[in-house]
Amino acid sequence: MEFLTGVRKKEVMGFDEVREMKSAGCEATVEGAVHSLRKMGEIVFVILRSCDGLLQTVYEPEKSGFEIAGVREGTFVTAKGLIKSEERAPGGVEIRLRSLTVLSEPEQPMPLAISKWKLNTSLETKLNMRPVSLRNVRERAKFKIQEGIVRGFRDFFLEQDFTEIHTPKIGAKGAEGGSNIFKLDYFHRPAVLAQSPQLYKQMMVGVFDRVFEVGPVFRAEKHNTKRHLNEYTSLDMELGYIQDFGDLMAMETGMLQAIMKLLGNRYAKELKILGVELPKTDLIPCVRFDEAKQLVADKYQRRIRTPYDLEPEEEMLIGQYFKEEYNADFVFVTHYPTKKRPFYAMEDPTDSRYTLSFDLLFDGMEITTGGQRIHDYKMLCRKLETRGMSQEGLEQYLDTFKYGMPPHGGLGIGLERLTMKLSGEENIRETTLFPRDMSRLEP
Amino acid sequence: MEFLTGVRKKEVMGFDEVREMKSAGCEATVEGAVHSLRKMGEIVFVILRSCDGLLQTVYEPEKSGFEIAGVREGTFVTAKGLIKSEERAPGGVEIRLRSLTVLSEPEQPMPLAISKWKLNTSLETKLNMRPVSLRNVRERAKFKIQEGIVRGFRDFFLEQDFTEIHTPKIGAKGAEGGSNIFKLDYFHRPAVLAQSPQLYKQMMVGVFDRVFEVGPVFRAEKHNTKRHLNEYTSLDMELGYIQDFGDLMAMETGMLQAIMKLLGNRYAKELKILGVELPKTDLIPCVRFDEAKQLVADKYQRRIRTPYDLEPEEEMLIGQYFKEEYNADFVFVTHYPTKKRPFYAMEDPTDSRYTLSFDLLFDGMEITTGGQRIHDYKMLCRKLETRGMSQEGLEQYLDTFKYGMPPHGGLGIGLERLTMKLSGEENIRETTLFPRDMSRLEP
Repeated sequence: MEFLTGVRKKEVMGFDEVREMKSAGCEATVEGAVHSLRKMGEIVFVILRSCDGLLQTVYEPEKSGFEIAGVREGTFVTAKGLIKSEERAPGGVEIRLRSLTVLSEPEQPMPLAISKWKLNTSLETKLNMRPVSLRNVRERAKFKIQEGIVRGFRDFFLEQDFTEIHTPKIGAKGAEGGSNIFKLDYFHRPAVLAQSPQLYKQMMVGVFDRVFEVGPVFRAEKHNTKRHLNEYTSLDMELGYIQDFGDLMAMETGMLQAIMKLLGNRYAKELKILGVELPKTDLIPCVRFDEAKQLVADKYQRRIRTPYDLEPEEEMLIGQYFKEEYNADFVFVTHYPTKKRPFYAMEDPTDSRYTLSFDLLFDGMEITTGGQRIHDYKMLCRKLETRGMSQEGLEQYLDTFKYGMPPHGGLGIGLERLTMKLSGEENIRETTLFPRDMSRLEP
Repeated sequence: MEFLTGVRKKEVMGFDEVREMKSAGCEATVEGAVHSLRKMGEIVFVILRSCDGLLQTVYEPEKSGFEIAGVREGTFVTAKGLIKSEERAPGGVEIRLRSLTVLSEPEQPMPLAISKWKLNTSLETKLNMRPVSLRNVRERAKFKIQEGIVRGFRDFFLEQDFTEIHTPKIGAKGAEGGSNIFKLDYFHRPAVLAQSPQLYKQMMVGVFDRVFEVGPVFRAEKHNTKRHLNEYTSLDMELGYIQDFGDLMAMETGMLQAIMKLLGNRYAKELKILGVELPKTDLIPCVRFDEAKQLVADKYQRRIRTPYDLEPEEEMLIGQYFKEEYNADFVFVTHYPTKKRPFYAMEDPTDSRYTLSFDLLFDGMEITTGGQRIHDYKMLCRKLETRGMSQEGLEQYLDTFKYGMPPHGGLGIGLERLTMKLSGEENIRETTLFPRDMSRLEP
């Protein structure tokens, strides 16, 4: 009988290991895709690509002792050779080839010049050819940053004794109502896709006190902007036993600090590839919604047209204001108008036109919406009534409160949008592996 | 201007902290829900519940100095008092109350006896009243185990240089075809919900070499069994540059070892609550599909009726066989018949009736399906043709191979089913927060 005993040790070195060994001059076996080929007379520079980045290998006809004729861009190989220090090579190291085994060959030449530093093609083409365009090192780096954000988010909340949950994406009713819901047939019953895990994460606060979830959400909004998607990854948390909604903003500040620290420590390579400087998170200013509107109206000579709404341009100006006045990259805008917030938002007891809620702006764009929720059963029932909403389909949600709930609140972050702002992109599709918008359902 | 500077320090102690401080006799402030109340003459034992578990607090009318009349099961409170060592209390510690602040009150008495050790009610009732039934400490513990599984899975693969990805759940075409697909209208275009991230994770192997994803998958199968759901959380990975599909089983063995280690270290409390003994993962036997069928046919006097299929009873007997013969909790069954595997499965070059694939059985039930995939473009096109499948909707997937792909394979694990087997449950709904089956769409 054969037994499996655990991860197999491979003879193969990662490119980073090779770079660390550059002074040793020993032999190495590496694996990679041929990223580019450059002939210099008889000598051929074969640049390999792996998840670690790029590595220069050198074919010298007399010393290498094999034929390199069949090797092309897109060939996957195992390469053996001697590690040599070489200042002119990326990472200061190269491998002098002694053998090259072809693992697989491409059927056709690469349709995009992915080995260029900056992929010189339209967003549309990049998205149409996603599995190819992402082989470009810069394109790919954005999704390592995205990984780092999620990792920092999760590590932070696990550290803070939150419980990770997985809530259903198919349900009988949308969390927040409205028309932006995808509908489907579920065994001959009408069903919808989750707009947010909102109601579920609140239900779970009564169970675990503190919860978070990372998962897809679906919005059937007919928008076609640079910052919206119809499916995105939502980073959600909900926190019980809050003193006030400042606890939520404090927690998010701590989370951002943890994410930036992780990115700085473990994703330095990708930050460098993208030329990204991490934003400041040590002090995040906090301003009331109505005050923020007034501040930018005064400073930028702008008339307030919609007292209960924030226009994208106003958001942008608030970002600009706090950058100019306080050198702040982030700003919390608090006390959003009640009519702009969903039914479960806690109203300000001193002025019911406003809620105990906030948005977080990053570089003048909303990346988080959060706030305190109503935890009192009767208050919640009254609120539904005031809004003319039915309790139908909300029975279990309301039961949560009927049997007791602590004061609580939470927030949601759009992962792709945060990645976009962090990596300095202008279109959210640039930082989405496979975007879904009104016109895009493939690949 | 007010600034946020990071997580606020709370004056409140967690129950675990209180347990650690039991010899100190100092004062503590704790928060929790009143889990149960027990009167002993004038004295009232108020058992509090938090994410840390249960904590006994004691009300003594003369010393406590406040009225406890309004406090009921389901009241959320902040409690202050003196920490005292007390052998008869759970965890050997209690708090002698000096003040009790009510944070919120329930509207109605608890509809289930959640403070009982074992929730004595039907599965149906538990699911109908999920936000309440999960407040039972045993019910809740299963989902901490689930958290631990996901955490161990991710930590392991990040450690092994995998990249975490997030792929779309709405698409134009199902990954594996067939009729078990939920359909929806996507801005007047037909769309489907993802049955699996299969095609996407393969596309991403060409980009990141090694990838994993944790996310929901959707299966419109009309089954009503104890081990199937119509929506579940899939733990997926895909590994490039494999030597053979044994690399995948070795990697999964390493992953299981890492998960069990994490559970043993960080989830000991929940394992104890559930009375779970962790399964053995040091040596996992590996047997061919046809051999496994023969072994159980011989040992248990069973006729082989379906040579190309494994019946649930046969799976169970294979589990039993390897438990009896090798004291093994897990067993890899390899070389599944080609006709039972999807188009992308790599056939065994020595016998095309079988594939280079495997299932992992845990205690006689399949918890993983995996295998090597076809990485050669022409082979893949021929396979589609042989199966009478169209390339329509697979263009981008096929392009991935056209421009070169390393040998690779991967696997998928159903999170809820693994949690079920690990926590000794018989029905997958027991280990799903909010199950979705043919008759259940709420809560």
